[in-house]
This record gives sequence, structure tokens and C-alpha cells, in this order.
Amino acid sequence: MIIKKMRCWLLLTLGCLLLPMAGAMAQNQATWVWYPGDFEIWLGNQMQNRRTERGSFFPPFWRMDSHYVLIDFHKDFDLAKAEEVELRAEGQYNVKVDGKLISGSPQRFTVPTGKHRINIKVYNQERVPAIYVRGATIASDNTWLVTYEDKEWIDASGKASDQSGTTWLQAGSWNFDDPRGAPSRFRLITEPQRAANVAAQPRSMVVDFGRETFGYVKLHGLQGKGNLTLYYGESREEALATETCETLDRIVVDQPQKAERTTDMSKAFRYVNIQYDQGVSLDSVSMLYEFAPVLERGKFRCSDQQLNKIWDVASYTMHLNTREFFIDGIKRDRWIWSGDAYQSYLMNYYLYFDTPTVSRTLFALRGKDPITSHINTIMDYTFYWFMGIYDAYQYTGDKALVQQMYPRMQSLMDYCLARRNKDGMMEGLAGDWVFIDWADGLSKKGEVSFEQLLFCRSLETMAVCANLVNDKAGAANYQKLAADLKAKIFATYWDENKHALVHSRVDGKPTTNVTRYANMFSIFFGYLNEAQRQDVKKYVLLNPEVPKITTPYMRFYELEALCAMGEQSYVLKEMKSYWGGMIDLGATSFWEEYDPAKKGAEHYAMYGRPFGKSLCHAWGASPIYLLGKYYLGVKPLTAGYDTYLVEPNLGGLQFMEGTVPTPQGDITVSCNLKQIKVKGAAGTGTLRFQSKVKPTSKGGKIKALPNGQYEMQIAPGSEYVVTYQALQSPAVK
Amino acid sequence: MIIKKMRCWLLLTLGCLLLPMAGAMAQNQATWVWYPGDFEIWLGNQMQNRRTERGSFFPPFWRMDSHYVLIDFHKDFDLAKAEEVELRAEGQYNVKVDGKLISGSPQRFTVPTGKHRINIKVYNQERVPAIYVRGATIASDNTWLVTYEDKEWIDASGKASDQSGTTWLQAGSWNFDDPRGAPSRFRLITEPQRAANVAAQPRSMVVDFGRETFGYVKLHGLQGKGNLTLYYGESREEALATETCETLDRIVVDQPQKAERTTDMSKAFRYVNIQYDQGVSLDSVSMLYEFAPVLERGKFRCSDQQLNKIWDVASYTMHLNTREFFIDGIKRDRWIWSGDAYQSYLMNYYLYFDTPTVSRTLFALRGKDPITSHINTIMDYTFYWFMGIYDAYQYTGDKALVQQMYPRMQSLMDYCLARRNKDGMMEGLAGDWVFIDWADGLSKKGEVSFEQLLFCRSLETMAVCANLVNDKAGAANYQKLAADLKAKIFATYWDENKHALVHSRVDGKPTTNVTRYANMFSIFFGYLNEAQRQDVKKYVLLNPEVPKITTPYMRFYELEALCAMGEQSYVLKEMKSYWGGMIDLGATSFWEEYDPAKKGAEHYAMYGRPFGKSLCHAWGASPIYLLGKYYLGVKPLTAGYDTYLVEPNLGGLQFMEGTVPTPQGDITVSCNLKQIKVKGAAGTGTLRFQSKVKPTSKGGKIKALPNGQYEMQIAPGSEYVVTYQALQSPAVK
Repeated sequence: MIIKKMRCWLLLTLGCLLLPMAGAMAQNQATWVWYPGDFEIWLGNQMQNRRTERGSFFPPFWRMDSHYVLIDFHKDFDLAKAEEVELRAEGQYNVKVDGKLISGSPQRFTVPTGKHRINIKVYNQERVPAIYVRGATIASDNTWLVTYEDKEWIDASGKASDQSGTTWLQAGSWNFDDPRGAPSRFRLITEPQRAANVAAQPRSMVVDFGRETFGYVKLHGLQGKGNLTLYYGESREEALATETCETLDRIVVDQPQKAERTTDMSKAFRYVNIQYDQGVSLDSVSMLYEFAPVLERGKFRCSDQQLNKIWDVASYTMHLNTREFFIDGIKRDRWIWSGDAYQSYLMNYYLYFDTPTVSRTLFALRGKDPITSHINTIMDYTFYWFMGIYDAYQYTGDKALVQQMYPRMQSLMDYCLARRNKDGMMEGLAGDWVFIDWADGLSKKGEVSFEQLLFCRSLETMAVCANLVNDKAGAANYQKLAADLKAKIFATYWDENKHALVHSRVDGKPTTNVTRYANMFSIFFGYLNEAQRQDVKKYVLLNPEVPKITTPYMRFYELEALCAMGEQSYVLKEMKSYWGGMIDLGATSFWEEYDPAKKGAEHYAMYGRPFGKSLCHAWGASPIYLLGKYYLGVKPLTAGYDTYLVEPNLGGLQFMEGTVPTPQGDITVSCNLKQIKVKGAAGTGTLRFQSKVKPTSKGGKIKALPNGQYEMQIAPGSEYVVTYQALQSPAVK
Repeated sequence: MIIKKMRCWLLLTLGCLLLPMAGAMAQNQATWVWYPGDFEIWLGNQMQNRRTERGSFFPPFWRMDSHYVLIDFHKDFDLAKAEEVELRAEGQYNVKVDGKLISGSPQRFTVPTGKHRINIKVYNQERVPAIYVRGATIASDNTWLVTYEDKEWIDASGKASDQSGTTWLQAGSWNFDDPRGAPSRFRLITEPQRAANVAAQPRSMVVDFGRETFGYVKLHGLQGKGNLTLYYGESREEALATETCETLDRIVVDQPQKAERTTDMSKAFRYVNIQYDQGVSLDSVSMLYEFAPVLERGKFRCSDQQLNKIWDVASYTMHLNTREFFIDGIKRDRWIWSGDAYQSYLMNYYLYFDTPTVSRTLFALRGKDPITSHINTIMDYTFYWFMGIYDAYQYTGDKALVQQMYPRMQSLMDYCLARRNKDGMMEGLAGDWVFIDWADGLSKKGEVSFEQLLFCRSLETMAVCANLVNDKAGAANYQKLAADLKAKIFATYWDENKHALVHSRVDGKPTTNVTRYANMFSIFFGYLNEAQRQDVKKYVLLNPEVPKITTPYMRFYELEALCAMGEQSYVLKEMKSYWGGMIDLGATSFWEEYDPAKKGAEHYAMYGRPFGKSLCHAWGASPIYLLGKYYLGVKPLTAGYDTYLVEPNLGGLQFMEGTVPTPQGDITVSCNLKQIKVKGAAGTGTLRFQSKVKPTSKGGKIKALPNGQYEMQIAPGSEYVVTYQALQSPAVK
């Protein structure tokens, strides 16, 4: 489903709008298929076990699951004429047609005319059992059904059991359409890149690649005998700090003739400090840049050069962190963290619209039952996982994803529900990490309001998804649980004197501590009435007394809340100062944490280590999301952009233009103080804007709303030019 | 624990009775360790996916689980002086001492004087993460603790989390004491064997290995170009039936010079029919016999030569089916079936007393959570799994096994409890196989009494094990559930007119159908009062109107029930007729099913296939158990033979002698009509016998009981001779 859609988007990107064709074209295209989630989990294990700390292996601290080793694939066909099919499998396998075993492990077999069932059973302990089947009309794709227990026993007479106890799911797939390209052969792409600057000294070379990058280092003309060490640095300071840099590679050289040598494992760096023994010599250094071939469909340009630079650095940050999965940061963990990934999903919808990476990340994060801890062990990260599925459906309209995920959603929600305290709230139990944010002195004690808010949103997500898969009883139950919890949240935490939600309840008593977290989420969750919204804005968001947020991670939501309240001008200034601040310090990608109060190399320290901080962290790229959703102003109103809103907000800019990808085509917006140009995608859009004068449009019908607002419908694929006069004068130069 | 005990038994077998030494000796012996159950599950996948049917791969139809791919091992040490340790790991790994990472993946490291914790974390997708650590005093063994999620996160300051949410289990181990012998290198042993008879013709050779056997076929002097096929037969008829024999190997020969070639996969056969193209020639054929090196500690010899032959064939049958695990039969499935394995455990206690094979089989059968079907999909087989643990504890006294298994016992019992119907009984739901036995027309409908009986016994097992692991609340709960169910069973199924338990209740009404199953189990479960016992014996067990049992599988229990009621003479005749009947038909190992009414090759058919039947099936070996437990009369009274009973019963024989293994030493019994000789093992035994005259004993104190019975205590390791006069005259010649 996802893949078909993707093909479809590509077609659209190429300017082909013959939508009904797309489905038909995909019909006979065979692709490698597997048990849903299994390739994702397997690949996730590979990637997440690549972390090293100063040469030592540094794996995750949560449970890593595995693929099912024995899978049955089947599909029923009704053939007009007999058909020979070609079969490839990863693993040991057998083939049955109509329940009858074909001798050996055939690479080709014939299916006769008429109605027939093909079953293929594959065993693979090391890699994910997968198949590729292709005939004239028969093709392996995600319409095949799969199970890990077919329960197909026979009685003493040879009669087969009924299999009514077997659960069949739709096969998982991606874009492995080449029969030779089995899933286990998947690798990211690499391309050679040259160093920007080299400082060579006897027995050492410090190489600067010009900006944050990722890949394998190539040593050219390596010769001699002795040790060579590569000290990596996201900063020059780090590369030079041979005792404290976070990553390194030690190589034993024994090379009588000059040769080229590439490091074994890809790493993050801008600088590489190479030191070697006297007996070793080295001509030059280059690298293989490693990346995921995602298409940058989202675009943004405006009259403010600093903001353009911020967009560029953000999208490069996002590019580096979009790999096999959406990861947190390229230097250190290279793990999949649900809270970090949640932001990447949202940015992705405004940059790549690469749904397979979203779905892969969701599957890998979720792993398998039984659930023995929160996702990444973090309570909030469990909730972000649910929210990620809600957003995936809203942006992509991909019901199949929800369908495949729903059983895993149910069991994860059961896990949460079983961990509520006697008041029905979630608080940290043994082994639970209540994270919220990296912030000094932030209390995690008792029932934290932020966690209840996310829990409530997760229950709402369950209700939505239950409806999508026709689990009516489930939907009603989750809806009621959500409504009850929401009522309890406001009864417990809303403090009339503070005009805000307080941070927590400890020992049955609400604290008087006000933090930004729950308050800002309550705004874009739509949990507040208008008076409360204004209160929160004034007494929390714009109140310097409330502790500041220092991570781009929570800045994401803080600025989103302000944008949701029309504070684009304010947010623009904040973006310029905060992200612009990092750029001013020489950042070529955005950081895990940024405190403008710090100086020099202080910026690089975290976790008690001088270079512990990641200088290329996915959550640093949030301007992509803010600019696409709240400045270009594009967002889906119904699932998959069937209907959508375009509500441009210059926020003080003179001019902006950009592209927002959707499942079927791009939406382009261009806007200055006098003119708005919009080109719609496949769904039906609504352009909404404010104007000092009565606006006009060629081809479009403009409707006046109260308060100087106007609306115009955008027909699928059509382009419009609106002449208007922007309400506010620009505030940013 | 198991391993240490085993070493200990070996020491004892060698005549060394210095018990306190055994523990001490094991102390510094390092062995490879892993997460409990993981090696067992991984090895089980390998073995159970070796089934082929006429050259096609034929895997199980239930879910196969996998090892955890990322494991943390740790142990705390208090060292008198610093110690260098050697480390080997299967997989990528790191080492921490006191939470501090050692650089790289060290093969040696030093632990300083004093209290220190070693953590080793290993990742391995393909094989089971395992470690071997050895220093002067430090050694990897099952006192190390393991987890698949250490939850060892750090906060922004670098402070580590508390890990109170982590479950640590004791490491699993076996006998991999050689640092070079990592678990994944485990293989069974092979040794060359010659053919007994060869019938060569142009382009074919029919080789007879003289008896049922297992292994790899070796082709000597193979030369030429063309195809060669090996058709295997447990019978000559099967090997000659090239179109219907169950297993075969196809080989493409392209061999200009004479060479030797061994088949890839071991197989079961007595006969091999080798057919080859004209261009191919072959000098001779031999085989590599493949087997598990288990020690045959149990012995039996008597005055009846046919019974001696039955014992020999039974123990050979057991030997062939005792492999990586206790399997069902060597020809066809080579799968681990819980019901079959349950009987192997019991036979094992009278033949090998090989506890590691019991524990491996239990782990492999159970797999991992979540539970999505009964064990092997069969309801009764789930219950046998519980019962197998009860027996393992009773025979071995190994509390550690119960401790390791208990969490998996709890979740499997939860699964069962959740599947009870509204009356609290178990009946087949979608996907459940209600097996009971291979028997034509046997009803599986409704609530089958046999299943409730096994369910009740499983609940009793849970209560016993809950007490062993100090789960008091669990014990009380399981005890109550068992008692309630037992009362319900008798209220529902006991039919005063039939003097028996009826077979089932369908649509709320007990049927009037009486079968042997529930009735015979109710005897040795001790569920009947004396009047009921006599009723069941007369109206069921000895009643020819009640449908006969045709599988050795259920004959096992039928004859056990009769033995438990003192019918050794009757059972002896039955054994001679039934197992002797197979031998008379030329059996060199015992069969999956035997119906004396069938003729010739009819005996080989099953599952609708002419050679579908297994002629070497573990459940065919039950005389081992019956002879050891009910003729030599040896059984534990308390766990691990701390106290035990020896109650010889000649059952009509003139003479018998034998050995029964226990955890610590063997018990030997020798008995004719006038003399009983007993030698005890480590525990305290009670010899019980009947005598027409007042018996005497050198060294032993004989106590007279009512009804002509006498008892004498057997001190640890001592030997006694009793002079008596057997009550009954011999009835068998």
C-alpha cells in the first residue's frame, strides 16, 4: 500500500497526473515481501548496534526483538491460463499448490488454470524470511497473507486441520522490486567526497570536511608498519582532544606497498585527526559520504537570508539523521528514539513525505510482544509512538498502516492501562524513565501533568484508529477513557491563580510549580478554551519567569504552540535568535541542546563529558516543520490531504515561497504583502488569508469571513493568483 | 546447577562418594553461559527444521521463537588480590568493570582487589549471545545474572538510572567447559559403521545396515557423471518403493576420479536403495552413525529372554530418539512434541538420568511469550509440559530448574485459565488441537474428561512449584483452582452405572461413552478412592468391551495404571505380547503404532501414506519405565531421591536384576523367589516386599507390616541381602 502510493507520488512528481493508472500499473509488479515489521526490526538491530564509544561497542539498554524465523506466505489466484512463476526466497523453503508439496525447493513452478492457492514456507534464523514471486499475472506483493503459525496439522488419516485459529496479516514490503535485491542486501548509498582542508604534520593529519558529515574515511597511499588512530570530531576541539573525543578508530597498518584503506564502520564527523607511528606514512584522506536516497520535495525560500540559511542547515540536519530509520543523532547513539522520531515524522511531512521511513521507524520502535518496558524505556516515548501513528494517518491517509499496527497498538495500550495508579493516572514505576526534556532540576516525581496529557492524546489516537479498523467496542472504550482522563487532568492540574496547568501532583497534592510542557501541548492538542489559551500564552509561554527551554526538542513544541496562536512574528524572531545563534557559532547542522549563555567549547559538553553533546541532532531541524505548517501554512484537514488548508502567514517577512509535499502531488505557495500564489495537489484545498482590502483572484472564488478573513477553494492540481493586502506590516529585517 | 550435579553423578558413578567435594570442585570451573532457554530454543530451531518429505523441506506448523539478540551478563566479585581474566564471547561485546567501559572488546582484562562488578554485554543476531570468562577465582557459570534489558540509561549529567525495573535471571549453561567450544559449535557425535548386507545390481545397490539406524550415508569410490538417488527405508519395502518412500536424497555426480561422498543431512533408515545413471559407478557404501553421548546407567536383566530383548530394543529406540532433544521419532518429524517428550523424560529417569536433555527439551518446547497457541498447538501437550516439570523436580530435586521455568509456567497457565469456558473447563477453541491419542473415531467434542484431568494435574503442579519459589499467594490460588476442578470432574463425569469416568460432556450433557484415557490417568494421579479404583480396573482396564488402545503411547499409561494396582503379572504378559509382537515382526526398534490385527506391509502405513508410520518412535520404549519403576520397583518418595522406595515385583519372573540411576549414585536391585539384594544410593531408601515366611537380612532391620508385607530401611550407599519366600508362584515361562 505504502509502496504503491510512493510509486504514485513519484509519477506525480514527474508531472504525470493520470491517477487511476497508478494502481493498475502496480498490479503486476512483484516485490520482496516478509512478515510485517520483521525486516524493520532486523534492520533496526543492525543499525542500533553500531554505536561505539571510543572504540568500544555501545548497544541500547532496552530489549531488541527479532524476526520470526519461520513464515508461511500464501495467496489465492484465479488464472485464465496456466502460468509459470519464478520464485526466490531468503532461507530454506518449500512450495505448496493447493496444499500439495512440490518436490524440492523449486525456483520455478507452474500454477494451472483456475482457482489455486500458493503457499510458500520459509525458514531463516539469521535473516528475515522473505520471498519474491513473479509470473505473467502472479506477483508477490503486500496483498499476500502471512503468518508465523499456520497450525496446519494432519490427523492419523492425513486429513488437514481447520486453521481457524490462525491470524493472517498482509505481507510487509518496501521497494525491493529487483529479484536480485533481497531485503538482507539493503545498504545505504555512498559517494566519494573530498576534504575541504588538511593540516598535515609529521605523523599526523587533521582533515576538515567543511561541514558536519557522515560516512567512511578513506586513507590513500597508506604504507608502512605501525598503529594509526583516527580521532573524530564534530568540532575541531573534539578531534584534537584525543583523550576525550567520543569516537575513534584504531588501525594496525602492515602495508609494504602503498594502498588505500577505508574504515569499517561509518561515523559522524566534520574533522578527523589522524595520528600514526613513525613507521607509517599517508598521502591523503577523503571520505565516502553515506546517505539515504530520500527525495527533498519540500522547499522554502524567503526574503530573510538568515532564515533561508536556517532552513538549509535544518534540512541538511534532517538529511543526515534520516537513514535506515529516523535516528536521534549521527555521532553518538544512532538509536531510534520515539520522542526524537516523532518530530522527524512531522518534519518529514514537510520535507520528504517519505512514508516508508515513518512506517519502518514505527515498526522498529514498537518491536514485539510481550511488552516489558516503555518504548526506549521512556514513558513519554510510548505516548509519542501512538501519536506518530495518528499523524501518519492524518498526513498520508494510509489506512493499511493503521490496520497492520493496530494489534501492536492494542497490546501497548493494555500495557499502559495496566500501569495506571489507583487514580487512573500514569506515574513512573520501577524501570520507567520519565524523561520530558533535558532540563536541570525538572521534577519527575508523582503524577506529572505532561505525561497525563500525552496519555490522553494516546487514548484519543486509539479511539480514532479503532474506528478505522472497525473495532467499534474498542473505539467507544478508548473514547470514554480519554474523556474521563481529560476531565481529570483539568480538575487536578488547572490552577486558577496560576492561570495554567501545574507541573505535577505529588502525594495526592497538586504542586504550585508551573512549567511550559503540559501548557504548550494543551494548546495544539486543542484542550483549552479561548480564555485558557490566552492565559497560557500570557502566564506561561510569554512569561520569562517560567523556566526557559534549552533544547531544540522542546523548543519545537513551544514555538508550535505560539504559532498555533498566531504568534508567527514572535516565533520568527525566536527562530532567528535561537537557530541563528547556533549558526553564528559555526554550526553546520543543528544541535542536541543549545544554551546561548554558554561560551566556546562549553557548548560541546553534555552527560558529564566534554564532547558528549551531539552537534547534529534530528530534533534540531524543527524550523522545517514550523515554516511549512505555520508560515506557508499548509496542513491536511482530513486524512491524506483529501481536504487541506493553506493559510500563509508571513510573520514579518516580505516574501516567502515554498513547496509542501502531499500523498498525491505538491502544494506550492508563494506569498508577499500583495500577492498570494497557490497551486493545489490532488485533494481539495482551502486558502485562508487576511487582507486589508477586498482581494481578487483569476479563476478563484473568494468568500469573505468575519474579522477581515477570506477563504478560497483550491481545486485539485489548479493554480491561483490572489491579489490582496497583508494585514500586518513586516517586523523582521 | 544441573551441570554441577551431573559432574557429581559421574564422580559417584566412578565410585567416589566424597559428596562435599563435588560442589567445591565445580566452583572454579568456567563454562559458557547464556540467557536461560536461548541456546535451547536456537538449537531447537535448527533441529526441528531438518525434517524433509521426499526431498522437500517440511518445517513445523507452530511458531518458532528466537534467542534474545542482546544480553547483559554480570556478577559481583570480592577479590583477595587483583586477577587477570580471559574472556571469550559469541558476538560483538563490551566489558564494564564497576560500570566503566573498558576500551575496545578486550580478550583479557584485570579486576582489581576488593569488591567489583563485571558486566559483559553481547549482541548476536545469528547465534546465541554467550560468554566464557576465566580467571584464578573468577569463572563464568550459572551464578552469573543475565537480562535482555538492563535499562541502564543516564541523565543529562551522566548519572545512571536506578535499574529496579530490570529482571535478572541466572545464566543458562550446559557442559561447554572448553573456551574453544562455544555453544554454536555444538554437534552430536558420529562414528563410522559398516553395512550388514549389500545387494548390488547394475545401476543400483540396496544396502541393509542390519537394524534401524541414523546418520549420514557415505558413498565410496563414487565416479562418473549423472544423477544418483538414495531412497531410505525403515523397512525393505519402503526403500524399494521409490515413488512413496518418505525420505530420499538426490545427488548430482560429476566426478572424473573416484571419490568419497557423504550425504548432507543425517537421516533415519535401516535400508538404503541407491539408484544411479549409467554413467555413474559406486564401489561400496557405509555410514556415519550420529548419536548423543548419553550414558546408559539404567540396566535390566531377567529370567525371560523375550523381556530382555524387549528391554534392549526399547533402550536402543530411546537411544536413537535422544538427540539434541527428546524427539518423537527419527524418520519423519524430528520435532519436539511435548506429549512424546513427557514419556521420554520418565524413561530417561530409568535409563540415562540425563537432566540437561530434560531441561533443554522443556525450554525448547515452551519457547517465549507471548503465547499464541498451545504447545505444539495441542491442548493435552500443554498440560504434559507442566507435568514434566513436576516430575523433573521429583526425580532430580533440581529447584533451580523450577526457579528458571516458573515465570514461563505462570504465563502458560494464564493462557490456559483465560481459555476456560463458562463452566471453568477446557474445550477446544479455534486453532486448538485436542489430540489424546491416534484412535479411529475418538471424539474430541465438547469438554473431554481426559483434558480436564490433565488440566487439574497441571494446576497441582503449579501449586507445588509456586511453593518451591515462595509464591505463597500463587500456591494458594492454584491449589484452590485444582481442588475446585477436581470436584467438578467427579461431579460431571463419574457415572455410577458405568463405574467409570465417561469420555466427555457435550452441550452440557455427560455422554455415556467410556474410554480408557481419563480412567487410567485417574488411577496413577491418585484421584480415585479404593472402590472406584477397583471399579475402573474391572469395568474399564480389564474390560474388552472398552475400545482397545493401539498406540504404544497410550499403552504406556494403561499398563502403568495396571502396575500401580499390582497387576504386574498381567502387564508382563501384555508387554510380551505387544512389544514382543513387534519384535516377532522383525522390529529392531519400537513403532509409533502397532495393531496386531494388521498384516505385512499394512503395518507401515499411516496418515494415508503407505510408509507414513515411524518405526522408531520414542513412545515405543515404555517398557524401560515400567520395568524400572514397577518391577525393580524403584521410585523417589521425596524430591531428588532424598527418600525413595524399592518395591520389587517379579510379576511371574523367576529372577530379575537391574540398576536405577538417581541424582547421587545408582540403586541396584537383584531379586529371585528366595532372595532380594539391594544396594542404595545417596538418599534413604525403604525396601518393601511380601514374603510367605519371616524374612531375614544381614545388616538390615526388617519390620513386619500387616498383610504379609515387610519393610527395611536402606542406608545411603549400603548393600543388603534379604532372604525371603516370594508370595506368588511364577506364571510366566
